[in-house]
Amino acid sequence: MLMVQVRMESNLLGANELLARNNRRNFAQRRLLVINLMSSPGSGKTTILEKTIENLNGKIKLGVIEGDLYTDRDAQRIEQKGVKVVQINTEGACHLDAGMVGKAFHNLPDDPLDLLFIENVGNLVCPAEFDLGEDFKAVVISTTEGNDKPVKYPLIFREAKVILLNKIDLLPYTNFSLQQFREDLAQINPTAPVFLVSGRTGEGISEWNEWILGEVRSKRAES
Amino acid sequence: MLMVQVRMESNLLGANELLARNNRRNFAQRRLLVINLMSSPGSGKTTILEKTIENLNGKIKLGVIEGDLYTDRDAQRIEQKGVKVVQINTEGACHLDAGMVGKAFHNLPDDPLDLLFIENVGNLVCPAEFDLGEDFKAVVISTTEGNDKPVKYPLIFREAKVILLNKIDLLPYTNFSLQQFREDLAQINPTAPVFLVSGRTGEGISEWNEWILGEVRSKRAES
Repeated sequence: MLMVQVRMESNLLGANELLARNNRRNFAQRRLLVINLMSSPGSGKTTILEKTIENLNGKIKLGVIEGDLYTDRDAQRIEQKGVKVVQINTEGACHLDAGMVGKAFHNLPDDPLDLLFIENVGNLVCPAEFDLGEDFKAVVISTTEGNDKPVKYPLIFREAKVILLNKIDLLPYTNFSLQQFREDLAQINPTAPVFLVSGRTGEGISEWNEWILGEVRSKRAES
Repeated sequence: MLMVQVRMESNLLGANELLARNNRRNFAQRRLLVINLMSSPGSGKTTILEKTIENLNGKIKLGVIEGDLYTDRDAQRIEQKGVKVVQINTEGACHLDAGMVGKAFHNLPDDPLDLLFIENVGNLVCPAEFDLGEDFKAVVISTTEGNDKPVKYPLIFREAKVILLNKIDLLPYTNFSLQQFREDLAQINPTAPVFLVSGRTGEGISEWNEWILGEVRSKRAES
């Protein structure tokens, strides 16, 4: 087997860094915990968000920035849960960047919030490279995608503070090896907690939500 | 709900077009049918390729160019099926481009081939924008990703000559609406045939393979 290796092109990461720093300052002034939620298309980010909002609404104040290429379908779903949403349409761009998020944040109502979710474009490659000014990145991966994804897309799994393995209800119908998945993550990101969840059945969502509440409390304590 | 729209950055599509034209000329000289296979991470491109090679090997001569960020796992799987493979590692880049494919093609053995598959990086956004010089694009989408993907990622579905709906064996365990999927595709890409397949059980693979043989025959007839 022959192998061809290709160098990555340089990009506008420098400019993004400045804008991310600006976002981080604005988030801190509002004493907000900000989570950048990333995954492949169809891993279940929006369904997990819906369930999370149902659980946390009333306990803390939530807002959501939705990233999508063209549609506002996900934002419509989130809005029905009774939280403030701003939609970003990237018009074909494969990731959110700090500039887009800065504009969207400016359009969020001024009400005090405890937690802001940013749902990134469905893509396991490009979003990992762009700091949005968030506190941390969360990655969703679903059992139906196969256990080899951390090894094949290591950057996004390395960057994550927390990992959600979704569609755990479909595990028996796949050849996903939980043991291999954990062994691979032990190499790539040994410290990130992994929550086994199902957006459909709700399994594991309350454990994930308790963990988030802990992060919100830590954030308040430090500010 | 508020809406922020973002313009896409300009990119190197112009340079890619020249290299794609060059590839197309080289493919034509070898009288090759070339298929660019694209999907989200974990939709099952490699499993479908494995099954397809099992079926077609002996009937026609196949080669494969494998695109991946860093690993050669998929190429190893394909090589075990007894066909020639060249691996492209994009080193983090989110798509193949015509330059990478040109180099990889140069490294394929000179034996006559009827059909070359190019398995793109797992990504439903970026690969759609890059002509590799292929005859046509094939898109794989799996039932577990949800029926809203054509509407959310219209470019890649519009560009496809053929669409494979994979993991059809998992359909009963999802809320995927086949009717809505077909209605949306009727708007976005009314002419592409849609094959319902399962890489795991082999369901529908022989129909897809018969279709490919028809395309190989048409290609031969025109050259």
